[in-house]
Amino acid sequence: MARGLITLTTDFGLSDHYVGVMKGVILRHNPAARIVDLCHQIEPYDLVGAALTLAASYPYFPEGTVHLVVVDPGVGAARRVIAAEAAGSLFLAPDNGVLEVVYQRHRHVVWALRTEEFALQPTSNTFHGRDVFAPAAALLSQGTSSAQLGALLEDYVRLDIPRPRRLDAERLEGSVLKVDRFGNLITNLEPADLPPAFQIAIGGARIAALLSSYTAAAAGQVFAIQGSSGYIEISMKQASAAAALGAGPGTPLEVRT
Amino acid sequence: MARGLITLTTDFGLSDHYVGVMKGVILRHNPAARIVDLCHQIEPYDLVGAALTLAASYPYFPEGTVHLVVVDPGVGAARRVIAAEAAGSLFLAPDNGVLEVVYQRHRHVVWALRTEEFALQPTSNTFHGRDVFAPAAALLSQGTSSAQLGALLEDYVRLDIPRPRRLDAERLEGSVLKVDRFGNLITNLEPADLPPAFQIAIGGARIAALLSSYTAAAAGQVFAIQGSSGYIEISMKQASAAAALGAGPGTPLEVRT
Amino acid sequence: MARGLITLTTDFGLSDHYVGVMKGVILRHNPAARIVDLCHQIEPYDLVGAALTLAASYPYFPEGTVHLVVVDPGVGAARRVIAAEAAGSLFLAPDNGVLEVVYQRHRHVVWALRTEEFALQPTSNTFHGRDVFAPAAALLSQGTSSAQLGALLEDYVRLDIPRPRRLDAERLEGSVLKVDRFGNLITNLEPADLPPAFQIAIGGARIAALLSSYTAAAAGQVFAIQGSSGYIEISMKQASAAAALGAGPGTPLEVRT
Repeated sequence: MARGLITLTTDFGLSDHYVGVMKGVILRHNPAARIVDLCHQIEPYDLVGAALTLAASYPYFPEGTVHLVVVDPGVGAARRVIAAEAAGSLFLAPDNGVLEVVYQRHRHVVWALRTEEFALQPTSNTFHGRDVFAPAAALLSQGTSSAQLGALLEDYVRLDIPRPRRLDAERLEGSVLKVDRFGNLITNLEPADLPPAFQIAIGGARIAALLSSYTAAAAGQVFAIQGSSGYIEISMKQASAAAALGAGPGTPLEVRT
Repeated sequence: MARGLITLTTDFGLSDHYVGVMKGVILRHNPAARIVDLCHQIEPYDLVGAALTLAASYPYFPEGTVHLVVVDPGVGAARRVIAAEAAGSLFLAPDNGVLEVVYQRHRHVVWALRTEEFALQPTSNTFHGRDVFAPAAALLSQGTSSAQLGALLEDYVRLDIPRPRRLDAERLEGSVLKVDRFGNLITNLEPADLPPAFQIAIGGARIAALLSSYTAAAAGQVFAIQGSSGYIEISMKQASAAAALGAGPGTPLEVRT
Repeated sequence: MARGLITLTTDFGLSDHYVGVMKGVILRHNPAARIVDLCHQIEPYDLVGAALTLAASYPYFPEGTVHLVVVDPGVGAARRVIAAEAAGSLFLAPDNGVLEVVYQRHRHVVWALRTEEFALQPTSNTFHGRDVFAPAAALLSQGTSSAQLGALLEDYVRLDIPRPRRLDAERLEGSVLKVDRFGNLITNLEPADLPPAFQIAIGGARIAALLSSYTAAAAGQVFAIQGSSGYIEISMKQASAAAALGAGPGTPLEVRT
């Protein structure tokens, strides 16, 4: 069990003080905390992007890690602050569905936290990452149980992450979930969605090759590959498939048998 | 008292080795140091931006933290290297005014450090973050006192951070200090500068609403809000006020009663 | 000897989960590891850029540090994974030449690692940073020797880092290796390459001044300076020499006596 390990996933970017000051609050409350940045470049308010980033990361952390996600378009309003226990780890987030993949994958228990008991005073209406979530993360990382901080919650918010939709026996409609730094298009297709012989139509291109590594590709070839997060990706060798196809998050694609 | 905690604020960006190598020097001198990045995306040479980033952050860190700021247009010249004690913490910076907000808020004592006693040898003329400031931060974080490293300094450099200026009984002239990642315009107005009924004129827009949270806004509405750093901000709900108003650092505004 | 200190240099950027998840794997294998980011903004697949970033950084870290570099265009193919011991430190990387400067500077021993003995299972073909390099870094940081993980390797890959070329007795041809955040042009010239009286021709400009600090320059002056990494840099005072000269990585220059 990791004790004191906290990961941070936010849409705060790195050009402001927001992430740094959250770390200050965490360390003031738990001087032994160890903080790991998962990603702070989530697009502002992008719940799906944050959910996928978290989903690709938490399984690789030690049990007992506290995973804090602050993508929070509802900050300052009545949206709840929740903690979830699942997969031997703790998840802390606004109740806006950003933990959706955790809910889908694991048995889980969710608490609505009584924030007034631990929030910084005064509590701003614009920066709960600092005033509410950081103190909560520190407490959880010190071994305070979710049960001590809140009450069980059944009707937590779910998130609609686009899933492939079967059009007919021969056609499956999917979409691009995310583009990574290298221009790889992470789709919502899983390996089982691709029959042995297939064609993916996306942005005018037709892709029939499922390669096992980037290096197996020819220069300029656009191909499908099983990505490291479990999804099918559309890629090029040392080039950006996103740029070549003019595709990005939300771009539709069609798998044909 | 935190012992060994050091924060870093620089304009070095994250695309070079500069920040990483500073951490190496700190850890070589104090293997027990814990280093937190406040921000490295300060605009090059932007002393006001660095001063505000520091001002929004240090109060949230444990007492005894060493806050190192390296925005240093005078590197290699005769500008002094200073340490300041204030608010139970230590501040280390070039003597160029970047600690101005600390000076304004707290009783403080400033030392000019004898850098030749601890600087790396040879000492470059272009990278004192590595050669001068990192070793000094390590020493301070280990409990070496400022008095051991330098001499009291009275005539340290002050910084002119733009303040609102009263034009007449009904009009106050302010300006935008900073734009954050979400496009919020952080102004130099404080809550007391806004009378119960007011109008803020900025970039052709007229703002009369002071909202208590982003979620209280209508789509497309530009409004004022008390920001988390203590200043009035001009914001939109899930949109960039900076883009909508074409405003940025230095943009003037006028408060009318 | 530092035990448990690991630096990371990658081309993964900061907008995805890649760096964060590597840290998770490291911490799951070695909960006592301390991880320092050198740089994650290496241009995708830029081996020379990564080699230079590493070269400018590792000498400033404690002995025993594990320096992990993952710039890996050959991921998923048969390229080897290597560990090198040199200068009292450990280097871990794909066998693609990214450790070239270490090879040039120090006596070194290189091992080809038996990755199947420690890689995560299943092992992806696209993300060895997570599946292969992170576990190896954790093991090395815990004191496992390179010899336990692999076999001595003699024919490791070397990298061609552009060096100045003498055209005749009076002319030396060099090039720009890198542009930093401030627009400084880091060239491949070393101080000994500049005679007492010289002229550097680059992008239409003629530079004859070797200044000792930025502050010694006049506004708008383009000048040469000994940079902090040991190379001659072309700089301006608080302005971008890269923008002023339209120069970047690969731009040729000529030194004339």
